[in-house]
Amino acid sequence: MEATQETHVSLEATLAPSAGSQIQLSEEEIFAAHVGGKLSIPSKVPLASLRDLSIASTPGGAQVSRAIAQDPALAASHTWSSRLVVVVSDGTAVLGLGNIGPRASLPVMEGKSALFKAFGDLDSIPLVLDTTDVDEIIETLVRLRPSYGAVNLEDISAPRCFELEARLIEALDCPVMHDDQHGTAVVVLAALTNAAKVVGKEFSSMRAVISGAGAAGIAVAQILLDAGVGDVVLLDSRGIIHAGRGDLNGVKAAYAAKTNRHGLTGGIHEALDGADVVVGVSSSTIEEAALAGMNQDAIIFALSNPDPEVQPDVAARHAAVVATGRSDYPNQINNVLAFPGIFRGALDAGARRITPAMKLAAAGAIAGLVGADLAADHVVPSPLDPRVAPAVAAAVAGVVG
Amino acid sequence: MEATQETHVSLEATLAPSAGSQIQLSEEEIFAAHVGGKLSIPSKVPLASLRDLSIASTPGGAQVSRAIAQDPALAASHTWSSRLVVVVSDGTAVLGLGNIGPRASLPVMEGKSALFKAFGDLDSIPLVLDTTDVDEIIETLVRLRPSYGAVNLEDISAPRCFELEARLIEALDCPVMHDDQHGTAVVVLAALTNAAKVVGKEFSSMRAVISGAGAAGIAVAQILLDAGVGDVVLLDSRGIIHAGRGDLNGVKAAYAAKTNRHGLTGGIHEALDGADVVVGVSSSTIEEAALAGMNQDAIIFALSNPDPEVQPDVAARHAAVVATGRSDYPNQINNVLAFPGIFRGALDAGARRITPAMKLAAAGAIAGLVGADLAADHVVPSPLDPRVAPAVAAAVAGVVG
Repeated sequence: MEATQETHVSLEATLAPSAGSQIQLSEEEIFAAHVGGKLSIPSKVPLASLRDLSIASTPGGAQVSRAIAQDPALAASHTWSSRLVVVVSDGTAVLGLGNIGPRASLPVMEGKSALFKAFGDLDSIPLVLDTTDVDEIIETLVRLRPSYGAVNLEDISAPRCFELEARLIEALDCPVMHDDQHGTAVVVLAALTNAAKVVGKEFSSMRAVISGAGAAGIAVAQILLDAGVGDVVLLDSRGIIHAGRGDLNGVKAAYAAKTNRHGLTGGIHEALDGADVVVGVSSSTIEEAALAGMNQDAIIFALSNPDPEVQPDVAARHAAVVATGRSDYPNQINNVLAFPGIFRGALDAGARRITPAMKLAAAGAIAGLVGADLAADHVVPSPLDPRVAPAVAAAVAGVVG
Repeated sequence: MEATQETHVSLEATLAPSAGSQIQLSEEEIFAAHVGGKLSIPSKVPLASLRDLSIASTPGGAQVSRAIAQDPALAASHTWSSRLVVVVSDGTAVLGLGNIGPRASLPVMEGKSALFKAFGDLDSIPLVLDTTDVDEIIETLVRLRPSYGAVNLEDISAPRCFELEARLIEALDCPVMHDDQHGTAVVVLAALTNAAKVVGKEFSSMRAVISGAGAAGIAVAQILLDAGVGDVVLLDSRGIIHAGRGDLNGVKAAYAAKTNRHGLTGGIHEALDGADVVVGVSSSTIEEAALAGMNQDAIIFALSNPDPEVQPDVAARHAAVVATGRSDYPNQINNVLAFPGIFRGALDAGARRITPAMKLAAAGAIAGLVGADLAADHVVPSPLDPRVAPAVAAAVAGVVG
């Protein structure tokens, strides 16, 4: 239960029209847009004449098949597979909905595939699996390997998601990324990079507290360590993660060893006392009293959706920079800023893996686009900014070894 | 080897521009059309504003996901999955190319998916599998079951294709059809229905000889039996299939029992002596001398591609009706006449299986569209005739129980 609670935060769940939202949607409008699904697969080549059929089907298609049989490298250039992103889920941790299963997860996965096309110009299909067994998911994707070019894992519960991603990266010779982890982490790092500039603090001297140690929390911790944040403290539902706890799963135990360098114990109050940054990815709430103990010019990212860990107006009393996952407040942390460009860049460069360096480069590109507009209420670009995905793709491709 | 030889005939391989073809294609033209593949997946819903994202992604998509979790029937109406056709191959029997593997099969599979959309208005994706193990293929498709609505098996070698299809039909609660078998058989039956009218013969008094006992040959035999053809004689590379042969695999042995009612033995000469119909699906040749023994007003379907078992002008010396798989001769037998409408009709009607009655209905619909234009050189509609798929779909849906 703990894992589900922690991982059902997704930074895509950013546009919730709850109280105070600027976007009011009717149920009719939403359901009407989903009739028949949100994706379609037209042919890119004409099929109106016998000549067209000759080119696309036989003998044309067969001739290209024969050429690939002789030179397998042609599969990359003359089929869609090398750039096709499969959005893979077992439906165990869908947005705020939890373990609703593969069938019910499909509207979210279709939306993800639609965003890949709209922002990254990458074709993408949802593959939802009627198994939650890590071995079986890996085996299935290995068997399907000739069909696609990259794997976006989505809405898979922690801690299974960590093992699944790690083993898939080993099993497949193509980019694999669990977006709930790394897409989120990249955008958080981008926002924090700019927020640090606003308040004039160095990463190396910061203490960042992450409330929530599920998919997003663990990945945020890792990228902040990779980026050089001086101290990172993780909390799960039982409090601060430290080496003295005997109740930690493998991943949390590993992070107990590499975070919390001062050996803090206790809960959110103890963690935030003297902290510079708090990132909420917990679906829980953070009391205002705890925030009061943060350092001067604090940075608060309250990313749970639709209900942030703390309301932005309350957070603002204790922080110089506030961000949420919502579209109706400034500084929307939305991982659509990251994943289309990351996959696009990886595929453009022929990368076999998505590396820590590529994630850092992506965050840098996102942060860099804010440029001269940098301000406390503008630390990330708009999710609709068309410059973002190309800039991220170029930055990612640029660090492929 | 025998199986591969027999099954590499596909009635989609119909447009080969070999000597005498009217369609001349350059290699440059074919390869240029295949760069990047032939399919794309745009979003059907706009994604240009935050409001658009709210509808398609979150909270909109999540709201539909929640609704499906509460009422699973909504997955059929509000996702693309229930009407998505997966074109599944292991690349073991690709057109005239044989066992070229899954990656090399992709251009053919993409072409198939493109035809599903163009003629059946059904979205379709190729799934090519890096396994030829029947158990593993079934297991993979069972795990992916929430992702799709129907399975078109394609270019899978015999006799594995028979077991695979039969077991998949049992394992999955959705339409499954091996098109190399049944798409071919349906169009052959349609053409034979009209050819029989042209020559004024009844099915019940006919002997039909099928040269080739692979995927297509076996299915053609079955549908002709189902349609009431009086005697059906199958040949494989070793000659006439009869109950006295000790070298038959399971499927062929089964057909030895239900075909060849007069217990013919020998080869193509013996089979064609006094026969009314020959259907070539063998990739081999039939000597003119053998054709000379056929009955008056014979019917010759020489369907191997690009080289028919007998050239049409030679066949015409011994037959009243001649058909091939090629676009440059009259009476082109192309299974694009069948599969888009069969799957469309099955999905429109919510069918869980594609039954013999549905295949007969499809053949009847195809034959019926020729109407008053019926002639010896016009026994099937053009593969481009836009009336065909809707008529087939309606006929198929009409017999769903």
